[in-house]
Amino acid sequence: MGLCDNSLIKYKALEVIRMEKKPKIVVLGAGYSGMMTVIGLQKQLQYNEAEVILVNQHTYHYLTTKLHEPAAGTRHHEAARVLIEDVIDPRKITFIQDKVKGIRPKERAVDLVNREEPLTYDYLVIGLGSAPETFGIRGLKENAFFIRNIDSVRMIREHIEYMFAKYRNEEQRDEYITIVVGGAGFTGVEFVGELVDRMPRLCREFDIPREKVRLISIEAAPTVLPGFDPELVQYAVEYLEKQGVEFRINTPIEQCDEDGVILKGGEEIKAATVVWTGGVRGNHLIEEAGFETMRGRVKVDEYLRAPGYEDVFVVGDCSLVFNDEGRPYPPTAQIASQQGSKVAKNLIALIRGGKMQPFRFDLKGTLASLGRHNAIGIIGKRKVFGSTASFLKWANDLRWLYTLGGVPLVLRKGFI
Amino acid sequence: MGLCDNSLIKYKALEVIRMEKKPKIVVLGAGYSGMMTVIGLQKQLQYNEAEVILVNQHTYHYLTTKLHEPAAGTRHHEAARVLIEDVIDPRKITFIQDKVKGIRPKERAVDLVNREEPLTYDYLVIGLGSAPETFGIRGLKENAFFIRNIDSVRMIREHIEYMFAKYRNEEQRDEYITIVVGGAGFTGVEFVGELVDRMPRLCREFDIPREKVRLISIEAAPTVLPGFDPELVQYAVEYLEKQGVEFRINTPIEQCDEDGVILKGGEEIKAATVVWTGGVRGNHLIEEAGFETMRGRVKVDEYLRAPGYEDVFVVGDCSLVFNDEGRPYPPTAQIASQQGSKVAKNLIALIRGGKMQPFRFDLKGTLASLGRHNAIGIIGKRKVFGSTASFLKWANDLRWLYTLGGVPLVLRKGFI
Repeated sequence: MGLCDNSLIKYKALEVIRMEKKPKIVVLGAGYSGMMTVIGLQKQLQYNEAEVILVNQHTYHYLTTKLHEPAAGTRHHEAARVLIEDVIDPRKITFIQDKVKGIRPKERAVDLVNREEPLTYDYLVIGLGSAPETFGIRGLKENAFFIRNIDSVRMIREHIEYMFAKYRNEEQRDEYITIVVGGAGFTGVEFVGELVDRMPRLCREFDIPREKVRLISIEAAPTVLPGFDPELVQYAVEYLEKQGVEFRINTPIEQCDEDGVILKGGEEIKAATVVWTGGVRGNHLIEEAGFETMRGRVKVDEYLRAPGYEDVFVVGDCSLVFNDEGRPYPPTAQIASQQGSKVAKNLIALIRGGKMQPFRFDLKGTLASLGRHNAIGIIGKRKVFGSTASFLKWANDLRWLYTLGGVPLVLRKGFI
Repeated sequence: MGLCDNSLIKYKALEVIRMEKKPKIVVLGAGYSGMMTVIGLQKQLQYNEAEVILVNQHTYHYLTTKLHEPAAGTRHHEAARVLIEDVIDPRKITFIQDKVKGIRPKERAVDLVNREEPLTYDYLVIGLGSAPETFGIRGLKENAFFIRNIDSVRMIREHIEYMFAKYRNEEQRDEYITIVVGGAGFTGVEFVGELVDRMPRLCREFDIPREKVRLISIEAAPTVLPGFDPELVQYAVEYLEKQGVEFRINTPIEQCDEDGVILKGGEEIKAATVVWTGGVRGNHLIEEAGFETMRGRVKVDEYLRAPGYEDVFVVGDCSLVFNDEGRPYPPTAQIASQQGSKVAKNLIALIRGGKMQPFRFDLKGTLASLGRHNAIGIIGKRKVFGSTASFLKWANDLRWLYTLGGVPLVLRKGFI
């Protein structure tokens, strides 16, 4: 009994030591980067090797690259979200549904909205995503809609339908069925492409002739999809124009109000629906935490850490990574998931006393959908168009679902 | 050749005489009464016996008795409408899609919005339906929705969904997901019954817990379904209360504004959606035409003619028919279709030199649905509840579709 007691005490003591020493990793945000971090840790960590906590405002991860579909109403938003509990292993990852109120990196603490006690950590991974960047355009924040999350795109879908219903039920004012999309970057063009697909059915639903509806894409830069391959841009513009989209390039929006937008020069476009896709900036919590930022983003070091903090990793839209020419990579799901994957590996190296590896972005390609059956893109050095590009885009979405939850998730979400 | 010419001239002359003498019947409105008139004429008239013109604002007839379903969003509005061209024989009935601007019975002329020349007639059938009666309640007309036609119920459906989206995307204000139904007569109760059916799916769609949503039925009279069998009323109230409906009887609404309703006594209920089902009155065109009216309705003679006019029949919600105790029958689809049927017969009698028959309403029964799988009603002298009543209500809708367009229409519209 003495022996037995003794060994039990020893065992317990060891367990306490082990528990005390178990590093605590807190991941903020279940976007592409946060999920990839957590999935990476979950796959490679042994039980009890670390305590991993994932904090997210919603119970689900959503596929930002697909949000233009539920926003236009061409696909249900269920296809664009995945319940977190469906893809994490609760024995390895603790999920806390809460909203981050503030980050105190000097105290190694995170304050949550619904918890009195702060969350402490040994390692913090910040993947809190982005917020719309309105570039100081008057009234945009108050009057425009944003393709931002499940709630906001459901709102856009409902708003468009509501205005169509209003057009029929009240005075037939043209602005009710005029949709302005501010910004013709990837999100803007993909959203317009979906709208084009949606219109015939939507018009039938509300007994409105299709030719009465106006879809206007407005871009301040001298071209649609600035920076993208000109041949592909031309293909996209020609296709969308044939479907009735009006493009206004070289045309900055000066103001957005309840009636629509006012362009530089004074021209007014009356529109009940204005969706702004013109840009994003990092989450405001990053700045508030005292990190040095550029447009709300942290210029991370080669290991994706915030300058001055060895225990804080910043990933996804909150981070800023530069290419060899010194220009920042645009925030995409592709770079975010690669960052998450790398941070997971480096965290494991840190825990196990190994050596971290620097992050290098490996650009596989770029694809932009133009509705359900058309797309453009570059894979490696090859340009792709039409149904080929459309298929690749679809396959890419499935691949992400597979990464998150294997074949079952692909089957459940990939074919909605 | 002489003979031939001669007979041709005779024939042509006879045709002209026949054409000149062909009486012109104009039917205004394609509701239950108007459609029944036209269908009756179409079935019994020979070609060339009369010129029949049907005027209607929309290209379709809609089933007012089913409008509470698309209003709540439990069934698509296509199930509640029938294209006029699908059920009329264009060789016998000429359909004009236009809106009536005014009726000049002394000049036998009807002015339409999109036609310069007035439409003249030998016989006029007015079935222009009803308008909401707001009993002078302040702000109701401006701020409430009405279960009135396809456009208005599509608007209600979209408005409810829009407010649910707003609740998720903006501040979570309870009034966004509070629905007030003013009036607990047949339409009000049937609408509340549908809302109850809709809520679980709607709440899932917008990630809102069902218990957060309030459905409030407000009635000025001391009981729900005033004048109806008390046992059936109790059944309905108990069922709906169990589904979470709050009833406020004996409670007149004093005012409706952007924030909701103010009840007599001053209590305010904040609600983003207020639907008024408290009553209807005849179409304002009736009063404007100079007919003598009671709450916008014409007290018709025994042949359903407007007093003082032998060539003007008034049917449906525009007409007022009294029972043997001197009380007016409530406006229903049942009485409207019986009136239409009788007017068709009497018009044929007039054309053929026969004798008209007086109208007598034959009340077959009354049924009110409580959602998709429950209902209450009286058939003859028998009370019916639950699935039996629900089945009878369904069968009755099918019967109307059959009357309009036979088996093909039943198959096309009855199972949406």
